Amino acid sequence: MATTKIGIIGLGLMGGSLSIALQETSDSFYFIGLDHNKRHCSEALELGLVNEVVLTLDEISQCDIIILTIPVNGIINISKQFKDLDPKCTIIDFGSTKEKISNVIPKKIRENFVAAHPMTGTEKFGPSAAISDLYTDKVVVLCDMEKSGEHQQNVAKKLFSDIKMQLVFMDAKEHDRHAAFISHMPHAVSYAIANAVMKQEEATSIVALAAGGFKDMSRIAKSSPNMWEDIFKQNKSNLLEAIDSFQDELKKCQKMVEKEEWETLNNWMAEANTLHDIL
Amino acid sequence: MATTKIGIIGLGLMGGSLSIALQETSDSFYFIGLDHNKRHCSEALELGLVNEVVLTLDEISQCDIIILTIPVNGIINISKQFKDLDPKCTIIDFGSTKEKISNVIPKKIRENFVAAHPMTGTEKFGPSAAISDLYTDKVVVLCDMEKSGEHQQNVAKKLFSDIKMQLVFMDAKEHDRHAAFISHMPHAVSYAIANAVMKQEEATSIVALAAGGFKDMSRIAKSSPNMWEDIFKQNKSNLLEAIDSFQDELKKCQKMVEKEEWETLNNWMAEANTLHDIL
Repeated sequence: MATTKIGIIGLGLMGGSLSIALQETSDSFYFIGLDHNKRHCSEALELGLVNEVVLTLDEISQCDIIILTIPVNGIINISKQFKDLDPKCTIIDFGSTKEKISNVIPKKIRENFVAAHPMTGTEKFGPSAAISDLYTDKVVVLCDMEKSGEHQQNVAKKLFSDIKMQLVFMDAKEHDRHAAFISHMPHAVSYAIANAVMKQEEATSIVALAAGGFKDMSRIAKSSPNMWEDIFKQNKSNLLEAIDSFQDELKKCQKMVEKEEWETLNNWMAEANTLHDIL
Repeated sequence: MATTKIGIIGLGLMGGSLSIALQETSDSFYFIGLDHNKRHCSEALELGLVNEVVLTLDEISQCDIIILTIPVNGIINISKQFKDLDPKCTIIDFGSTKEKISNVIPKKIRENFVAAHPMTGTEKFGPSAAISDLYTDKVVVLCDMEKSGEHQQNVAKKLFSDIKMQLVFMDAKEHDRHAAFISHMPHAVSYAIANAVMKQEEATSIVALAAGGFKDMSRIAKSSPNMWEDIFKQNKSNLLEAIDSFQDELKKCQKMVEKEEWETLNNWMAEANTLHDIL
């Protein structure tokens, strides 16, 4: 089988886990990595996540498939620097927001480009966080696919199917609104819970009592500030709207407790239970 | 070895899991169950969680140890109905709030009584939710122990140590304030996240994108409204204070996003990361 050259720009959890997952489907891949963090480059080589690392975008531009697993602002910056791509080259970005990316990709490479958002991750980062089943059975949202070339659409669909992801198609605008509710607002909430507890005088003795519920609610408050600053930047208006909707609900709860409207509170909790009929 | 009779009032997740855990430490226990839910009684018998079920408090009052694994208002009500307890009888309540319980237990049985809060649980309920390791390596908070008899203190300490819990001693007032931050406020937040999403027109397609982060943040929104109504009632002022602290933090986040103060936002997220140095 001919070797497929895969370039991975951004050697962290997402890029590293993709390499592991692809290596499990076939041995015909050759992985070329690029990352401005030199420690991540040497770790990725040691862990066998890439076959070689390069220093410039030109050296990775000859790959059949180029994966962008870097923060969203980085994706936008780097997409402006590609020159002379082969018409068969497929670039897939894994950014968590999609509208701005989908709209600012330079016209000359827009058909090479596929805007994807694999709905998966952990709070860990760096190549050593890479795991083999990060993508297995998870959803990947493919956005504005009509803007990608037919070849590129097929390459992306095959790649995500091969690593056993469930494909969902959506326009980028709709994706960003949904992602604000399902992912970005919950991150803001988790950071706020962590900070609310840390501000208490007795933070240490409070945290000593933590059980599974608190650990779950604060887990994603471990996430990388650089990555999430970027996502909040890119999805500002949808995020603010989702935070507003959340605050409306929490204020309702607060009022019912203040006014001791226990029956209404019980109904409100029972409504929340219904989420799990569709989750 | 002489048989120790253990009465369990409330045959659900907590009571059922306790029976399994105790049966793993010794075969000298005889379990007597009481629950107004007849289906739970027959399920608990079928699952071997209890040896027999009884219908009245009198029939369970002869036990050596009586465990109250019912909602907090139920604990308060039932504690007023005990008559003529043996001075060696130990009653342990597992309620999630402690100050009101600790203060309203009738004087004549106060020494029989131990106010405990095992910091564990799942979002599931009923006897079929019982699991063997619910208590293993978890924290149990024992409150106002100086109000319990010496015998009762020793019985409770032995019981929780036998099922491998980590014992923490605290006054009931302090417990309730801590529990509001570590457990009760996060529950209100999780219910609010679930309701914010369910109120959206496209709730189903939003939820279709859910990954681990959202699942974690909404898991405890599955919890029983009856149980949580009761806890919110009992711990009203601490809960409202914890919600206020949380809202202060979320409002900070909201303002930083609105005003595009990205560096300050990044620092705020990095502060939240520090929770995990002590968790």
